[in-house]
Amino acid sequence: MKIGLDMMGGDYAPKATVLGAIAAHKTLAEGQKLVLIGDSQVIRDLLEENNYSADGFEFVHTTEVIGMGEHPTKAVVQKPDSSISVGFQMLKDGKLDAFTSAGNTGAMLVGAMFSVKTIPGVQRPAMTTIVPKLKGGLGILLDVGANADCKPEVLVQFGVLGSLLAQSVYQIDNPRVALMNIGEEEEKGNLLCQATYPLMKESTQFNFVGNVEGRDLFSDMADVYVCDGFTGNVILKMAESFYVITIKKGLKDEFFDRFNYEQYGGSPILGVNAPVVVGHGISSPEAIKNMVLLCRDMVETNLVDQFKKAFQP
Amino acid sequence: MKIGLDMMGGDYAPKATVLGAIAAHKTLAEGQKLVLIGDSQVIRDLLEENNYSADGFEFVHTTEVIGMGEHPTKAVVQKPDSSISVGFQMLKDGKLDAFTSAGNTGAMLVGAMFSVKTIPGVQRPAMTTIVPKLKGGLGILLDVGANADCKPEVLVQFGVLGSLLAQSVYQIDNPRVALMNIGEEEEKGNLLCQATYPLMKESTQFNFVGNVEGRDLFSDMADVYVCDGFTGNVILKMAESFYVITIKKGLKDEFFDRFNYEQYGGSPILGVNAPVVVGHGISSPEAIKNMVLLCRDMVETNLVDQFKKAFQP
Repeated sequence: MKIGLDMMGGDYAPKATVLGAIAAHKTLAEGQKLVLIGDSQVIRDLLEENNYSADGFEFVHTTEVIGMGEHPTKAVVQKPDSSISVGFQMLKDGKLDAFTSAGNTGAMLVGAMFSVKTIPGVQRPAMTTIVPKLKGGLGILLDVGANADCKPEVLVQFGVLGSLLAQSVYQIDNPRVALMNIGEEEEKGNLLCQATYPLMKESTQFNFVGNVEGRDLFSDMADVYVCDGFTGNVILKMAESFYVITIKKGLKDEFFDRFNYEQYGGSPILGVNAPVVVGHGISSPEAIKNMVLLCRDMVETNLVDQFKKAFQP
Repeated sequence: MKIGLDMMGGDYAPKATVLGAIAAHKTLAEGQKLVLIGDSQVIRDLLEENNYSADGFEFVHTTEVIGMGEHPTKAVVQKPDSSISVGFQMLKDGKLDAFTSAGNTGAMLVGAMFSVKTIPGVQRPAMTTIVPKLKGGLGILLDVGANADCKPEVLVQFGVLGSLLAQSVYQIDNPRVALMNIGEEEEKGNLLCQATYPLMKESTQFNFVGNVEGRDLFSDMADVYVCDGFTGNVILKMAESFYVITIKKGLKDEFFDRFNYEQYGGSPILGVNAPVVVGHGISSPEAIKNMVLLCRDMVETNLVDQFKKAFQP
């Protein structure tokens, strides 16, 4: 297994990515190779600085970097030798089994869709985030921003994607899929939810448990929460801000600790033909390590093959 | 000034409403009359039980009650002698200057639109909630559920409504109005936000400061946050659940304390021809008192006249 890591992506790269690569390397089993994509000399210097042998890694040298603020489509096209572009090219060519970066999220989305492409039958790939449950354990929220506007059929597909992710990577048995709405009853909600509910109810591809509301997100009413990417992004950023506030206030609590994105690594892009994980811009070495391990879990559980099977006509 | 209070509305009515009426009565000035609408005998008995004179109140006896779970439109039509229906009839007839209830929210919305009706020029009334700012003070979020689907022009009108509320009742000078979105740049967001941004930018009726994200809600980036009622309702319920979690966890903090809905009384329905305030179903006596005082403030500041002026053709 070969996992490609963008060494130039993220606010604290390449320092954080090198330290994260070292931490990941210590955890990965033999045969699980980490391919470091970026400025090889800089990376080798940093490894040496940290007294860590470069022998355990593979290196792919790149000369360009896509910045956090760059226009995704333009950047991917105009910087073919950027770490993100090269990573996706390798993923497409089968030289990598997974690719992860804490860099420009838009470029990662565009790169994934341009290179490995969407799985046949999947209308729109989705991005997910983890939501901790008050009683312990976790839930999955999707989409969190890849698709600001969604059709009902797309939300139903998110149910399939989220359900398979929950089952495979997070070992949640028969995951309960809920529709994020503003009322419990079937007829409640905006036009999108009203049209989505009956389709989800009919679906035999996942265990639909009905509507939930904003207050239920941290409860144990469901394992997968489906919404459009606008709603999901607002929820994600609001939850992040709550976490930041508890940190600032010095409020220590194991529940709030579980909001820490670092331990989840990053957000997988679900519905493309290879495992791709996008990290938070502020990713620390711990986060980078867990992005790599999430890639490994997605490869090991054959998540993409499961998606392909679920969406084959 | 006469403020009508639905004595039968809310999970803890009529006990909580009677105690709330007593607390409000102690705060109201002379000439600010509280009209208690509901089962007069039950109310009088409860006042006596609490050793509080009934002389300071006016009483309007009603024989029916609209339950929390009833279908709003049906209930308002089929129960003409319910406290909510009678309250709105009195408001329409000019026998009340404001009306408030912690009962069935849908029935309050329907009742308001059927009786006093929407202000000419206002496309859709909105419901608001208060969001505490981390640095102190408060912001206003609207719509929080009256309109699950909104047109861009409706969001612009919410900007006007929210801005005038902030100015009048909360004495915020030149309130900053922001569009809740999933990116800072003008072109970001779902189709609704993309269409709304330029309209808000052009508007001369309020001080538009651009897009904000979910993480900015408790910051000081704006005073009025505009979104569709679906997004707003998810935000509101998520914020409530965070507050409940901090309470359960015993995390005491003045910022989280300011999430307590009790101190804000309730949510005004903005854009109808009279001051109407809807309370939380679980309203305590403190919340009931503050619902009454919010009504008073809306009457005193001539908020409805300001709306009428802003929307006159």
